[in-house]
Amino acid sequence: MSTTPRIDINCDIGESYGRWSLGDDRAMMPYVSSVNIATGYHAGDPPTMRKTVESAVEHGLGIGAHIAFPDLMGFGRRRMVIAPHDLQDYCLYQLGALQAFVTAAGGRLAHVKPHGALYVMASDDPEAAYAIAAATAAVDASLPLMLLHRGCADAVARAGITLVSEAFPDLHYDDQGKLMIENSKVPWAPEVVASRAVRMAVEGRVASVEGLDIEVDAQSLCIHGDASNAVDVAQAVHAALGRAGVDIVPLGSLLAACPTIAEAPKKGRSCV
Amino acid sequence: MSTTPRIDINCDIGESYGRWSLGDDRAMMPYVSSVNIATGYHAGDPPTMRKTVESAVEHGLGIGAHIAFPDLMGFGRRRMVIAPHDLQDYCLYQLGALQAFVTAAGGRLAHVKPHGALYVMASDDPEAAYAIAAATAAVDASLPLMLLHRGCADAVARAGITLVSEAFPDLHYDDQGKLMIENSKVPWAPEVVASRAVRMAVEGRVASVEGLDIEVDAQSLCIHGDASNAVDVAQAVHAALGRAGVDIVPLGSLLAACPTIAEAPKKGRSCV
Amino acid sequence: MSTTPRIDINCDIGESYGRWSLGDDRAMMPYVSSVNIATGYHAGDPPTMRKTVESAVEHGLGIGAHIAFPDLMGFGRRRMVIAPHDLQDYCLYQLGALQAFVTAAGGRLAHVKPHGALYVMASDDPEAAYAIAAATAAVDASLPLMLLHRGCADAVARAGITLVSEAFPDLHYDDQGKLMIENSKVPWAPEVVASRAVRMAVEGRVASVEGLDIEVDAQSLCIHGDASNAVDVAQAVHAALGRAGVDIVPLGSLLAACPTIAEAPKKGRSCV
Amino acid sequence: MSTTPRIDINCDIGESYGRWSLGDDRAMMPYVSSVNIATGYHAGDPPTMRKTVESAVEHGLGIGAHIAFPDLMGFGRRRMVIAPHDLQDYCLYQLGALQAFVTAAGGRLAHVKPHGALYVMASDDPEAAYAIAAATAAVDASLPLMLLHRGCADAVARAGITLVSEAFPDLHYDDQGKLMIENSKVPWAPEVVASRAVRMAVEGRVASVEGLDIEVDAQSLCIHGDASNAVDVAQAVHAALGRAGVDIVPLGSLLAACPTIAEAPKKGRSCV
Repeated sequence: MSTTPRIDINCDIGESYGRWSLGDDRAMMPYVSSVNIATGYHAGDPPTMRKTVESAVEHGLGIGAHIAFPDLMGFGRRRMVIAPHDLQDYCLYQLGALQAFVTAAGGRLAHVKPHGALYVMASDDPEAAYAIAAATAAVDASLPLMLLHRGCADAVARAGITLVSEAFPDLHYDDQGKLMIENSKVPWAPEVVASRAVRMAVEGRVASVEGLDIEVDAQSLCIHGDASNAVDVAQAVHAALGRAGVDIVPLGSLLAACPTIAEAPKKGRSCV
Repeated sequence: MSTTPRIDINCDIGESYGRWSLGDDRAMMPYVSSVNIATGYHAGDPPTMRKTVESAVEHGLGIGAHIAFPDLMGFGRRRMVIAPHDLQDYCLYQLGALQAFVTAAGGRLAHVKPHGALYVMASDDPEAAYAIAAATAAVDASLPLMLLHRGCADAVARAGITLVSEAFPDLHYDDQGKLMIENSKVPWAPEVVASRAVRMAVEGRVASVEGLDIEVDAQSLCIHGDASNAVDVAQAVHAALGRAGVDIVPLGSLLAACPTIAEAPKKGRSCV
Repeated sequence: MSTTPRIDINCDIGESYGRWSLGDDRAMMPYVSSVNIATGYHAGDPPTMRKTVESAVEHGLGIGAHIAFPDLMGFGRRRMVIAPHDLQDYCLYQLGALQAFVTAAGGRLAHVKPHGALYVMASDDPEAAYAIAAATAAVDASLPLMLLHRGCADAVARAGITLVSEAFPDLHYDDQGKLMIENSKVPWAPEVVASRAVRMAVEGRVASVEGLDIEVDAQSLCIHGDASNAVDVAQAVHAALGRAGVDIVPLGSLLAACPTIAEAPKKGRSCV
Repeated sequence: MSTTPRIDINCDIGESYGRWSLGDDRAMMPYVSSVNIATGYHAGDPPTMRKTVESAVEHGLGIGAHIAFPDLMGFGRRRMVIAPHDLQDYCLYQLGALQAFVTAAGGRLAHVKPHGALYVMASDDPEAAYAIAAATAAVDASLPLMLLHRGCADAVARAGITLVSEAFPDLHYDDQGKLMIENSKVPWAPEVVASRAVRMAVEGRVASVEGLDIEVDAQSLCIHGDASNAVDVAQAVHAALGRAGVDIVPLGSLLAACPTIAEAPKKGRSCV
């Protein structure tokens, strides 16, 4: 018996700050099911947070906390060597702040995703992953934590948190399945991203930059909102997934339908 | 039938920041019933917030959010002309951040008190008072808002929030009952503060700097934690109130016992 | 004997910050003679400062320090009540920082202009004006200080600094010659701004919003770089002034040719 | 012919920030010849910088810029992965800011010393060392750069800057001559520090923690101002060096007397 493939689409929003605007958040919203909202440490002053949260609630999107290193000048993209317990406190601070806006807007926090250098660090460093997961658990142990891959799943599980991993249809992968972030800066043609997204969602596979067919384990697809053609890409991905019969659903619904993702991530995509 | 007089004692704590320490929070805790914990805008980095909240929960104290202007260099003591809606968002951000630490420590947020220049502004400016009260209501409409006096009680009530006012036994009052903050810098003798505190709690009166006997309407007494003799003062006030038969109780218990404070603040101190 | 009218054109640049861009600084540079470069307190992280300074030096522009209140979230547009001596120190900090970049690029600091709320405050409040002028004098007493009008000229002179005032061809003036900043948000047609600029430079006059012909005393014309048609406006103003026979010169040359501006500001425009 | 041994004593000062005080700077000043003054990124708001600089000028001390990572919460003690060119700009910003206060106080900047994590990084990473040296050269190529050892001397020299290295009489060294920062937290007895300082200055040697006699190449001795007995230690070191016939001189005089330090650091201590 075949099941309908399902996947979440997420993008980063709310990255304006005071006088400075970044991205066209409202234009992206119709084409994604989840958003990661900046929480003030790398971007997102409180009025930006409020407006962004209100829009996301209106659009019925899954709202994630896009927590980051405290580095406005570097936009959270620079690794900082922070003691794990301090890092946990920084995360809890940001999670609480965003949650207040989400509650005020009548919504509910749905996931946590670290930003920039913290995302990369937490995907590879179990101590950092645990610190973030522990802060997440202090807020709501049912919130999944989104990371680049499942390498730190054990550390995350130790804090009682479910790790979900995502794929990037608009970035290159090498033959080992590792992201090649630096080599992927040119905006991709929307149809190319869309067809890669469909294959990721339906088959759990993608072509590496060398042409190898590699496996991709992802419960969510991330679309970059700061590419010059970001809205076109999002629209194309959304449309192509629909044509391919893939249900686009927020992470929360996905996990509710598939409670075993955390326990048996390697067993295949039968539930997704 | 006589009733036992009851009052709350509060002090500001958690005002360290990273490498910098301020005050001896733990030494003050045995002598107060409520604490106002800095939320990162004028003081209080996240690790400081966590440790301070944990101590306050251990001591069973009423935990207030000591929200402030975003001004680390000025310690929140400088007036900033911020649009009310932005101010409301700044407050909500800080309230949410602190609430996360309080919840994580197994406690419950008990009140809100603006700090420094925001405290003075909100006590006199209904727009600012409303902004803070509205942010408070978005978190929990049962949280009382502590201000210098009842001048903005209507604006606060419009947001659905109860205003409680406090008195300062270690500051001078003028003949009109206004605080003379600038003229009160020298540390006061602990016994003097203590006897003023008792009179404030029992009779609702204090001697002005000119010797006039004036009325003071207060549900809480504020003890300054940054005076050089702060702990001695707190201890003396606590002891003297006990000897005078005054129950020292957190604001929450006080309000629960006297639900009419918000509605009929001018009718006297019968309930308190 | 007639003299050629001369005037400076200035605009604010360098207001990007880290990941956030603002304005098209390079496109404005051919049409102005002076620039005011943000110094990190309201905008302008160090790499932005370096790049902006280098461009300005390449274009041979008069470089001004655009010093501000320490308020990134509010872009320096919110009044802060800062003790004058602290304000002086904040200004000196920013002046020194910018000067280092200017010197490194082989240029020379040419003037000082406060930004946003500090500009408005310093134009009206002699204490604030003196604080800024004193900081300026500590760096280089020959640097003129640019303000909205000559109201604080005495305070500025007391610090040994020359005050120069500027006019805004793209803003409304009321019948008393006061700027109506709030009523002027819609982008103006470039030709309208240009013809107002010419009249300001040649006759020292402009039409008020009510149609009255009022006097404008200005050594510099400010063009807003953040209007959506900013480059078109700058180009139109530059071209129209040229056609009208007005020399566009940096403030420094203007003052060198007219050393009496500071001493006899009210005597008319004979030197300009 | 014997020469009088000479050495500089330096300590970090100006590390207060707004409401927060750190260290007793004035008490340390009589016992050191150079000071490293915080420049706002890890500590040192502008009023603190001004007051600290004024005191240092009064005491006739060599004034160094204690530049740091932009990390107030972490006190500049956490490594940040910053692109070298951005780091260079951050350093230039801080150098310029401090220089303005030094010039205003009638003094002259005398050296540059990175703080905390930047100090450790620059001592080992030639790219970071070059970035700091290049920023220094942009301000004044005659300013020496103080680092932990001479490992990055080539990178520093490439920017045209002289590297001077320092020793820490109140920290342990291992048998390879490496500092054991983490193992040295307990305050040392003043006489112990003093006798180690004398041996460092006179013989260029110190006992390792294992008892080995190791070589120490230092033009300056660093005394920690934040130990609880800091002033006693400084006084003891100063007195002991005097009794041992060592001249305590600011770095500038030391280098003027020995122009070959940069060129021939390994040839011995004949000049020092």
